[in-house]
Amino acid sequence: MIRVVQKFGGTSVADIDRIRAVAERIKKEVDHGNEVAVVVSAMSGTTNQLVDWTVKAAPLHDAREYDTVVAAGEQITAGLLALSLQNIGVDARSWLGWQLPVKTDDSHGKARIKAIEISEIESRLSAGQVAVIAGFQGVGSTNRITTLGRGGSDTSAVALSAALKADRCDIFTDVDGIYTSDPRVVSKAKKLDRITYEEMLEMASLGAKVLQTRSVELAMNHNVRVQVRSSFCEGDGTLVVNEDEIVEQEVVSGIAYSKDEAKITLVGVADKPGVAASIFGPLSEASVNVDMIVQNVSEDGKATDLTFTVDKQDVERTCSILDSNKGLLGYLRLIADPNVSKISVVGVGMRSHAGVAQRMFKALAEKGINIQVISTSEIKVSILVSEEYTELAVRALHTAYGLDTEKK
Amino acid sequence: MIRVVQKFGGTSVADIDRIRAVAERIKKEVDHGNEVAVVVSAMSGTTNQLVDWTVKAAPLHDAREYDTVVAAGEQITAGLLALSLQNIGVDARSWLGWQLPVKTDDSHGKARIKAIEISEIESRLSAGQVAVIAGFQGVGSTNRITTLGRGGSDTSAVALSAALKADRCDIFTDVDGIYTSDPRVVSKAKKLDRITYEEMLEMASLGAKVLQTRSVELAMNHNVRVQVRSSFCEGDGTLVVNEDEIVEQEVVSGIAYSKDEAKITLVGVADKPGVAASIFGPLSEASVNVDMIVQNVSEDGKATDLTFTVDKQDVERTCSILDSNKGLLGYLRLIADPNVSKISVVGVGMRSHAGVAQRMFKALAEKGINIQVISTSEIKVSILVSEEYTELAVRALHTAYGLDTEKK
Repeated sequence: MIRVVQKFGGTSVADIDRIRAVAERIKKEVDHGNEVAVVVSAMSGTTNQLVDWTVKAAPLHDAREYDTVVAAGEQITAGLLALSLQNIGVDARSWLGWQLPVKTDDSHGKARIKAIEISEIESRLSAGQVAVIAGFQGVGSTNRITTLGRGGSDTSAVALSAALKADRCDIFTDVDGIYTSDPRVVSKAKKLDRITYEEMLEMASLGAKVLQTRSVELAMNHNVRVQVRSSFCEGDGTLVVNEDEIVEQEVVSGIAYSKDEAKITLVGVADKPGVAASIFGPLSEASVNVDMIVQNVSEDGKATDLTFTVDKQDVERTCSILDSNKGLLGYLRLIADPNVSKISVVGVGMRSHAGVAQRMFKALAEKGINIQVISTSEIKVSILVSEEYTELAVRALHTAYGLDTEKK
Repeated sequence: MIRVVQKFGGTSVADIDRIRAVAERIKKEVDHGNEVAVVVSAMSGTTNQLVDWTVKAAPLHDAREYDTVVAAGEQITAGLLALSLQNIGVDARSWLGWQLPVKTDDSHGKARIKAIEISEIESRLSAGQVAVIAGFQGVGSTNRITTLGRGGSDTSAVALSAALKADRCDIFTDVDGIYTSDPRVVSKAKKLDRITYEEMLEMASLGAKVLQTRSVELAMNHNVRVQVRSSFCEGDGTLVVNEDEIVEQEVVSGIAYSKDEAKITLVGVADKPGVAASIFGPLSEASVNVDMIVQNVSEDGKATDLTFTVDKQDVERTCSILDSNKGLLGYLRLIADPNVSKISVVGVGMRSHAGVAQRMFKALAEKGINIQVISTSEIKVSILVSEEYTELAVRALHTAYGLDTEKK
């Protein structure tokens, strides 16, 4: 007997028929003699409808009331799934965030879980009852409903797995696992049996949005074995685990890309201490998320160029903040280019292998693709290219690192 | 400064535009310097959708999970109304059943309120904050959501008014008050400025379904001044109060009717002690609600006929229960007639006036309408007539008791 946490996202519980199919799936796990706790999202479409209403009710809404409205979505699914389980003879009970409780801080709309009280459901799990938990929600210090932010149900599931010391945390989604690259772009992309937390973090934050980044961090910190699986077909999916559980580690595990960023270049920035801080300080205060930052050594020791990337949706705000501080920053010219794409080669194996970046540059050069910006970390190499080359570059790199599936 | 509880039903909060209109209406009350607590129902249609899902998920559903799903409707409205109030500059906060809490017994789906904790909202009302309370819901002894049954938001509002010692409880609905009869049937029906709790109880239980019967009982027991008003137009509506607040009491306040009952006649029932108990005992156990019961003195002292009414939807069940006990009950024949209508003349004034029933019989005789069954209480006279005569009878009685509005 093992203890399993299973999380079903919005498309997996889109309507009553799918909720009933999910119940059948859970029953199989129960029939194996396992203890099962389930975390559910809102039925797909519901959250958007609720968010839309809050925006119409009050464009500048109070996050406490927003949370009260939006959390109703997961509440509905939890009750309906408990009913569907009972209907096929599986003992089940729903639990809302305030009922367990899932205690969070008071940052409404983006709350962080502080503790999950599990004593009650633990005794029920032992007695064979399935616990169906509304994901995405908790309760703050003043007894008000909080929500964890978009995709928060993944975080709920991982946090619950950690609290329950679950043997496995299944994340059911509309893909059947993590691939070496986006299968819509790379037809030869193959499903990975295993991937490390670190790689998953890089893949997730780089646009392969299967798991919420926060949930992967949490899984890594608490050593939760996360299995990404499809709710629409059978199969083991991809297991996200510690590096030491992967025996033969490939040098590169995958090629990720993102078209969500824009490139900002400040030409003729004074080359003196404190300049970077005075540029990025105001952006940080305005909650503009800055990703890649590249600054070259200046030729004359007086002025240099500084390039960085921000979310495309933040470009206008970024430019107006920099513009209003132009006197202070003393740059000559600001160039914003939204037509870029970030492509990353990810793999924990590259820590012990030389020549990984070189192979990347060579492969892109052979296709005549110009690299605009390079940035590296321990387990990834990221570059910016002109957006139109995205698919060509991703496919070239997928082949260059030997990731293509063999034709059968 | 007075303290007001205002309740808005499903059609009053059907969409965001109406919720915003409700917010404006509440603002007026706040601008008068009054303390305002608001009780809301689910947006019209929402409850039906949620109920429909629970039925599809599990035809024989667990009432605890049903309550969890259905209570989400009022939760959504409460949050959206709080947001709409904030948006026009009115300080407001939403409260769910478990947050106040509204403590109920554990009869899920038809729970009864045991106590409402008001200390927190009372201090906020004093500070000028509007409390927006999700109606229809509470929390049971094991921390699970309970609901009060259909129309339960009226009961929530009256119970809250009693707990808060509110000066007035406004029930906003889609009619502008209580009428002397159904205006769709009697064009000369007029709006009553005041009506007593007792009369309202008879009117409500007789099919004039503006207020849930339970809420009227509760208002009567706690002396809550209930004002029935329209959410779509201005005006004071009808005040439901104690008899002593009505100076000039009419003999008859209104003519109610109901087409929801069927007549059951048992011919040749033995005229001996315990027969009635053995007939109605099994029906009561099966939760069949019996209304009018008429038994005549038997001519020969051996057998008599017994007539009573049940809800039309219970006719089949009633007949099969009686049929299966026929040996024991020893009646000759069972006649079920669904084509009847119950018409009632209601008025607390009839306690001190003779001839009320006589005027009824005379008016119906003049129109050639046959009276099948007669039943009287202290403040009403009810009769059964053939269903086709319903409208004719109601109009004749409305005129006979001098209730018609004068033509202007």
